[in-house]
Amino acid sequence: MTKPLISLAALFALAAPALAQEESPPPSPGEIVAQAPAGEWIDISPEDLLVMTLAPAEDGRERSVVIQLMPAPFSQGWVENIRTLARAQWYDGITVNRVQDNYVVQWGDPNYDNPEAEEAAKPLPDGLRVMGESDYLTPARHYRYYGAKHPHENRSSPPLAWHELFGSYAGFNGFSLGWPVGGTHSAVTFANRHKQENAYHYAHPDTIWPVHCYGMVGVGRSYSPDTGSGAELYTVIGHAPRHLDRNIALVGRVVEGIEHLSSLPRGKGQLGFYEDESKRIPILSVRVASDLPEAERPAFEYLSTGGETFARYADARANRRDPFFNVPAGGADICNIPVPVRRVAD
Amino acid sequence: MTKPLISLAALFALAAPALAQEESPPPSPGEIVAQAPAGEWIDISPEDLLVMTLAPAEDGRERSVVIQLMPAPFSQGWVENIRTLARAQWYDGITVNRVQDNYVVQWGDPNYDNPEAEEAAKPLPDGLRVMGESDYLTPARHYRYYGAKHPHENRSSPPLAWHELFGSYAGFNGFSLGWPVGGTHSAVTFANRHKQENAYHYAHPDTIWPVHCYGMVGVGRSYSPDTGSGAELYTVIGHAPRHLDRNIALVGRVVEGIEHLSSLPRGKGQLGFYEDESKRIPILSVRVASDLPEAERPAFEYLSTGGETFARYADARANRRDPFFNVPAGGADICNIPVPVRRVAD
Repeated sequence: MTKPLISLAALFALAAPALAQEESPPPSPGEIVAQAPAGEWIDISPEDLLVMTLAPAEDGRERSVVIQLMPAPFSQGWVENIRTLARAQWYDGITVNRVQDNYVVQWGDPNYDNPEAEEAAKPLPDGLRVMGESDYLTPARHYRYYGAKHPHENRSSPPLAWHELFGSYAGFNGFSLGWPVGGTHSAVTFANRHKQENAYHYAHPDTIWPVHCYGMVGVGRSYSPDTGSGAELYTVIGHAPRHLDRNIALVGRVVEGIEHLSSLPRGKGQLGFYEDESKRIPILSVRVASDLPEAERPAFEYLSTGGETFARYADARANRRDPFFNVPAGGADICNIPVPVRRVAD
Repeated sequence: MTKPLISLAALFALAAPALAQEESPPPSPGEIVAQAPAGEWIDISPEDLLVMTLAPAEDGRERSVVIQLMPAPFSQGWVENIRTLARAQWYDGITVNRVQDNYVVQWGDPNYDNPEAEEAAKPLPDGLRVMGESDYLTPARHYRYYGAKHPHENRSSPPLAWHELFGSYAGFNGFSLGWPVGGTHSAVTFANRHKQENAYHYAHPDTIWPVHCYGMVGVGRSYSPDTGSGAELYTVIGHAPRHLDRNIALVGRVVEGIEHLSSLPRGKGQLGFYEDESKRIPILSVRVASDLPEAERPAFEYLSTGGETFARYADARANRRDPFFNVPAGGADICNIPVPVRRVAD
């Protein structure tokens, strides 16, 4: 986390000369990631990993989903609530209740937010924090971009590496601490904005927030000013619903087993809820990885979004040069540059 | 099709005053579409509808998928091939062979493009056209945008209504004849670019092409210069893979039954191919709707992308004001504004 952060665009510049010298075909994004030096992979704390076990599939297959919770400074009140709920074993026995095509899979107490079944709702454990709508946002410290040294580069808080990605709206989009973020800014300095080889700019963002890419996990809520506790969760299984950004808390992402959620039968009720209660999928347990016996504890790492490999990877996602492709896109939506996360072998 | 086209941004302007006069909460995008006048819905020709019937699910459920093929001027060589293949009943008995999470579902002859099984490949019917890579692109006639009258407005070819949507790259993104398109342009005139109330601009695009949104259907191919015949098809079941734009032919979109494809078990082989051949899903038949007996012929219509309702709908997608939302996004990715398509009641 203390490594210098290099932005996507910086690697657009680095990648090209390297390719010109090679005779073999340009590497695919996956090949670039496979070649990353060990030092660019960052361990995910077992306090930030949840293991959610669904009831086995009809053919007996086990279904386990691993979720990475967000680190500080993002959404920490809800993240703490989720650990509290997991440790109270509150999630054990809840169900997946909603599967809406090209949108979300949602799980929780099926009596959540149902005025007709309020008394049947599962009581929440003590100690949950009530978060405010302003907590959807994170104050941004500073922003460093593309090569040139930022005046505050040596300060202790981690710099945010952003990029004005194609596919962005509401200001900038980029990556911070391994997560895709959007942001607003009050001041930007551009230099050679349209000439990427030498371009750099500094922005001084006011605010950043995580964004709703595929596989991101968020907190279901009722109408404003409710912000949800973390007892009701969903994950994105379609095109990024960016209109939810800043309207709902995001708390993490699925890093393994999303296929057990995304391939579930779609609900036939409104918003994809299962009308037939027997279709709900039981969740047997949700555990914080650090609470599991060491032998059962999964370990994951993510590719630093400030490192050289990530920048080459992002460039390759934005400009596919591997043999199948004829025309590089010239850009990529932030949600088309998923941050590489992998299981660490025992 | 001959209706005047109004762009998204034009409706950004129209929507706001209307809302200020209302006391009830602002309508959701779906409510706006439900109120569209009948004249803004355009019939889809039965020549442009394919009915693909999968083998029933394990629980006996029937699985039918309806695909709308693209009208001229888009991808017509491949579209003609697809009709030829359907009419030769060539698709009957092929299988879904690939389901890659957050990417595509692909169907065809499992021996397609497999050098080891070349002799086992199903022979193609006569009369298929061989398309070139330049056919991924469509020459653009002209472009009219936002309110002001375009000098060529009265010419007979349909004007293209585009919008510099958030979420775009490689030039403009917008809608043409009911389809999401990207484009490049050689000249643009902007006026009041940052003040949407009065903004307009003209672009004179060189080229447009359909884009890879969720549910779009494309033509599998081998390495360049192969462009595929239409015998191997796929649909998008994840975040829009825009890097495929201009690299593969798009030929249509799924307008009903996508859940029968998107909820299939993911393949465990490379690229999501089913390693276990028994997992492949048989396709019983693919028929052009116009070839079906009248009683079995489905009828669909789409909301004109040049009409007032579509502009209000797009504005509402970009700026959710219905009660659940606190912060409107201020923009939308083109793939987050799916063109409304609905079945016409008998």
